Amino acid sequence: MILSALLTSVGINLGLCLLFFTLYSILRKQPGNVSVYAPRLLQEHRSQQPQHSPRTVQFYLDRILPSAGWIRTAWNLSEDDLLALSGLDAVVFMRIFVFSLKVFTIATITGILILLPINYLGTQLSDDFYDLPNKSLDSFSISNVDNGSNWLWVHFSAAYIFTAVVCWLLYYEYDYISSRRISCFYSSKPLPHQFTILVRGIPATSGRSFSEVVESFFTEFHPSTYLSHTVVTRTNKIRGIITDVQKLCRRLAHLKSNNHSQHFRREGFLGLFGRKVNLLRDYEKKLEDLENNLRKEQFSSAGEQVPAAFVSFKSRFGAAIALHIQQGINPTQWVTEQAPDPLDVHWPFFSASFIRRWISKLVVIVACAALTILFLIPVVLAQGLANLDQLETWFPFLKRILSLTVVSQLITGYLPSLILKLFLYFVPPMMIMLSSMQGYISLRQIEKSACIKVLSFTVWNIFFANVLSGSALYRVNVFLEPKNIPRVLAEAVPSQASFFISYVVTSGWTGLAYELVQLVHLFCCFVSRLFAREKSDEFEVPSIPYHSEIPTILFFVLVGVTYFFLAPLILPFLLVYFCLGFIILRNQLLNVYAPKYETNGKFWPIVHNSTIFSLILMHVIAIGVFGLKKLPLASSLTIPLPILTLVFNEYCRKRFLPIFQAYPTECLVKKDNEEQNEQSMSEFFNKLVNVYQDPALMPVQYTGSSDSQNSPLLHSQV
Amino acid sequence: MILSALLTSVGINLGLCLLFFTLYSILRKQPGNVSVYAPRLLQEHRSQQPQHSPRTVQFYLDRILPSAGWIRTAWNLSEDDLLALSGLDAVVFMRIFVFSLKVFTIATITGILILLPINYLGTQLSDDFYDLPNKSLDSFSISNVDNGSNWLWVHFSAAYIFTAVVCWLLYYEYDYISSRRISCFYSSKPLPHQFTILVRGIPATSGRSFSEVVESFFTEFHPSTYLSHTVVTRTNKIRGIITDVQKLCRRLAHLKSNNHSQHFRREGFLGLFGRKVNLLRDYEKKLEDLENNLRKEQFSSAGEQVPAAFVSFKSRFGAAIALHIQQGINPTQWVTEQAPDPLDVHWPFFSASFIRRWISKLVVIVACAALTILFLIPVVLAQGLANLDQLETWFPFLKRILSLTVVSQLITGYLPSLILKLFLYFVPPMMIMLSSMQGYISLRQIEKSACIKVLSFTVWNIFFANVLSGSALYRVNVFLEPKNIPRVLAEAVPSQASFFISYVVTSGWTGLAYELVQLVHLFCCFVSRLFAREKSDEFEVPSIPYHSEIPTILFFVLVGVTYFFLAPLILPFLLVYFCLGFIILRNQLLNVYAPKYETNGKFWPIVHNSTIFSLILMHVIAIGVFGLKKLPLASSLTIPLPILTLVFNEYCRKRFLPIFQAYPTECLVKKDNEEQNEQSMSEFFNKLVNVYQDPALMPVQYTGSSDSQNSPLLHSQV
Repeated sequence: MILSALLTSVGINLGLCLLFFTLYSILRKQPGNVSVYAPRLLQEHRSQQPQHSPRTVQFYLDRILPSAGWIRTAWNLSEDDLLALSGLDAVVFMRIFVFSLKVFTIATITGILILLPINYLGTQLSDDFYDLPNKSLDSFSISNVDNGSNWLWVHFSAAYIFTAVVCWLLYYEYDYISSRRISCFYSSKPLPHQFTILVRGIPATSGRSFSEVVESFFTEFHPSTYLSHTVVTRTNKIRGIITDVQKLCRRLAHLKSNNHSQHFRREGFLGLFGRKVNLLRDYEKKLEDLENNLRKEQFSSAGEQVPAAFVSFKSRFGAAIALHIQQGINPTQWVTEQAPDPLDVHWPFFSASFIRRWISKLVVIVACAALTILFLIPVVLAQGLANLDQLETWFPFLKRILSLTVVSQLITGYLPSLILKLFLYFVPPMMIMLSSMQGYISLRQIEKSACIKVLSFTVWNIFFANVLSGSALYRVNVFLEPKNIPRVLAEAVPSQASFFISYVVTSGWTGLAYELVQLVHLFCCFVSRLFAREKSDEFEVPSIPYHSEIPTILFFVLVGVTYFFLAPLILPFLLVYFCLGFIILRNQLLNVYAPKYETNGKFWPIVHNSTIFSLILMHVIAIGVFGLKKLPLASSLTIPLPILTLVFNEYCRKRFLPIFQAYPTECLVKKDNEEQNEQSMSEFFNKLVNVYQDPALMPVQYTGSSDSQNSPLLHSQV
Repeated sequence: MILSALLTSVGINLGLCLLFFTLYSILRKQPGNVSVYAPRLLQEHRSQQPQHSPRTVQFYLDRILPSAGWIRTAWNLSEDDLLALSGLDAVVFMRIFVFSLKVFTIATITGILILLPINYLGTQLSDDFYDLPNKSLDSFSISNVDNGSNWLWVHFSAAYIFTAVVCWLLYYEYDYISSRRISCFYSSKPLPHQFTILVRGIPATSGRSFSEVVESFFTEFHPSTYLSHTVVTRTNKIRGIITDVQKLCRRLAHLKSNNHSQHFRREGFLGLFGRKVNLLRDYEKKLEDLENNLRKEQFSSAGEQVPAAFVSFKSRFGAAIALHIQQGINPTQWVTEQAPDPLDVHWPFFSASFIRRWISKLVVIVACAALTILFLIPVVLAQGLANLDQLETWFPFLKRILSLTVVSQLITGYLPSLILKLFLYFVPPMMIMLSSMQGYISLRQIEKSACIKVLSFTVWNIFFANVLSGSALYRVNVFLEPKNIPRVLAEAVPSQASFFISYVVTSGWTGLAYELVQLVHLFCCFVSRLFAREKSDEFEVPSIPYHSEIPTILFFVLVGVTYFFLAPLILPFLLVYFCLGFIILRNQLLNVYAPKYETNGKFWPIVHNSTIFSLILMHVIAIGVFGLKKLPLASSLTIPLPILTLVFNEYCRKRFLPIFQAYPTECLVKKDNEEQNEQSMSEFFNKLVNVYQDPALMPVQYTGSSDSQNSPLLHSQV
């Protein structure tokens, strides 16, 4: 890629972004789009004034003029406000941007002012100094520095200094976030999951139910702190019936709201022949049957208990004691783990035995590794099938259209990448699915685990697949010969600098703009409003998909860190990305996304580890590059750098990670003592006894007689 | 090596062993050797009848006749007796032999009856079927099977079946030993270390001593269970003074027991000139000074406290709670670990801060790895220096002796291996030293850690150094290219079969015979009796050096497992080794070694992991061998075997390892409740308060006036 081409691409994408921003600033002011651009505000508004509809706002000229007020609002939001609004997870999420901004500001200054001129003044690739626009981007990379040149020592020192700075910032952030986590714990209200643990692998005793076994075990071994327990039951069947009931309810409600003529249908083939039936009565009867069935199942399933139970304690410390100390003699029985929030429990998957859960975990790991490593094979096959010739043989009628140059160019240029995007689109949900099969019992654990999976997937299938162009097996092979890794990477990575610059500009910048405008959501909303017979006021406030957002950001950090000393030209573009991201995602957190559940900052260790991995990767490449550049001394002197980084990481693991895994005695006992004498606690404990109930076992209330469509048809009293 | 040579070597070593056994059965009956062959019995005897000396036994003819009674006694010893005599560690130690005997009985039957004939009938190496005595040992190994022969599938199935059998036996043993561990815990008396934890990283608070900080922390956060604490003090200086005092005391006692003329010595050069001095008075004065100094130091050092303390609790469960839950908000402060037995504490090393301990741990790991990997380099250098020519140039007067063929052959043949043995002799103490620098605070932890170090050292420097003959760096290189490992090992390992057979015979069998006869100890005893002016009745009952014994046995297991299907000829020799070992070490545990401290079976996980490693090594070699033998299908079909083994190991880790790390709530609470109402407990708690005192801080009692030499000169009231 030459410089002018890069500038063109940057120009186009910048234009696109500006266009999107303008569009956003206009669209967001249209009252019809409130549910797209500010569902969160809308919900809050409604909960305050349920009768007032915001659609009745009148037309102002201001509505069609672009404005930048939202940027100011997003910028002015303080961290404490964000914490109050969206919880610690959102703060941690924004800290990724703050951290990256710090890192890449320093990196950009060093890279552009020191490294870039040195690279450009090298003569390895070309001597033509003045033809700037036609200059290859490689002249700005380390490849242009003369072999064996002493200027490379500047790169060497830059690598050391940059690593030190990043490590220092990492330490600072870890420290900051862990103190935030502790202070959030201190200021939290008593929450059910703080007092509860999940016990699995309850041993089956003949003649006694699981409930009795749990009761006797905990009253014997935790007499002073044990409060109550709820044994989990298998509810797959009930869940099925409830889904049927819900479907039927919806159909019934739809029928009732329509005119009378549709209440009848003929019995026979396609509703054309046979005698007329009263659909309404028919449905109501079916519903009644289903409900009876449901009640019967709910009653009978009390016996079908799973050897798992939520056990609640009278104090947080009591729960911690049972959590941290092995309970039974057999470590595969009475396995304890922290209970999730009642609303956060992933009920469907409580597989029975220790060994089954353990095997399914192994299977998922293997499946995930296979998916990650072999993902590109089906993609390449699909891309091969979807080329021009194939399309012509399959759809002969397209021949004339395909023969147009524009169309054929568009297809050959965009179809492969479209297929790749399509496949990539399904990766986060697939990882969520795999994680939920892994036996996690809370949605946030599933999301965290999926986040790690998506991250490693992205690094492998975008970074390494582009760098080590070749088959998946070739790439696996490279990593099976550890000695050759630095050399192979050093040869391959610098030459891909221009690809990653354009990747940052297209995928990064434009991705953020898409995120802001929410094109898909807007389109869906528009279509539903166009075709729905009547306007539905129902909408759901989405929660931010951390498992796909965090890996994206971390991937850009990885690219920036690895290319920092190889091709510093990428750094300003990354800096722009993080600035945009900082503003846009703050805006989205403010208006669009509502927190669904809270991990209290547990995402940060992922960020930390990923950054350490990026640093190590950078060091390995540096070792190889200095070797290739005939500076073996620098290459050998770089070897301590990854070792020191790993030692630093190990120290951080010791110093901070335990805080993110559990709360210490000091906090727990202090918090317990504080609340000991509060009156509200007895009320809280009364509630706690019944809070961990599978919603499937709750009594179902059918509101068929009500005319209102807004009232939920199926109440689950949680 | 040809068969006849092997048989000669076996014959010689068998003869040696029989000679040693005969010698032992005679020597052990001599009353003068009781302190060598039955120090344990002697000690028990003395503690029962302190005045009776066994030396007065009269001479019987029976004393010079060899007998085999000791074998019967050793054989008849039941496991429960052994448990009562030497604790669970000895039982676990003997279980290694039982396990190995089971494994190698099955292996020998399969190997000799099925695999050996198949190997021998192959024609790859030679067609001369009938010249048995001159047959190379390689004809009995897998190398002799024809390339691509279908007979190799028998080896393939043997590998699968053998792995399954070993895994099953491993599971059974793990299960058995963990249940033993639990039952030992239930039957134990209350021990101080069960109620105590060691807390390190006590935060320094201005204006308050560590003792006050500990007191306030534990009374705040563990009000119901906290009992008392003892802050550790730095005692290096005091230790030095005590050593001086002890030395002086010994000299004084010696002086007093001798005749009066020696009490005077001239002051000047070499005691030849100058005025006469009364040594006795001189020494006594010095001793007094030292003791004053000591008392002063002991008094002042109360202020020099280390931020570490032994904290005792009123119940085992209370101690477990403080042990397992992170105490302070900063995980590097209030770091808890299980306290060792008071007598087992390794006092000298209580380094101050978390980070210093952590760094010293890292340094030791690096040093240990360097020692293991690079050990052979100094050995080879020393061997090179000590060859014939070098000796002749250094010691010209030896020229005539060295020119004798016998001497020169002896030197060239034995000197290098002697040097290797000498170096090897220092490895276990060196590993103990490294482990004690690693920051472990109990001797048993040090020994366990040294055991792992010695084991990996042995595997690397005996197995891999012999198999991959070449420089240490070459060997490291092999393991840096994981893809090539199976091929390289498959080429190298089978050809070393004859070396390992002779290794088993010489090092294994003869080593056990040496262990039985205790030649070095016997010689020392003899010399001391010969030269000592008077007979000293003092002796120490040794404890079995697990850190050097267990690795030796496990190394033979490794050799047996890896050579099982490559060269089954090795198996009968190993079987003999384990039979001998079973009898001899039982005998030694019965008569010689007394348990010094108890880990309650914590050595077993090392045995388990080492066996798993042996299996994996065997599988890797199998993959390579089937590849080399042109049977790629078998090679690929072997790949699941190591994976399945690792999965099995992972399951065992989950199922059994936690039991070896800490006791579960169930045991702790039951045991606590059992003892709650016992009267002896209040007495025990009273003692517990003061039991964790550094012996260096105890008041020293000087017994210079006593004439008895047996009474200890320095009393430390522990």
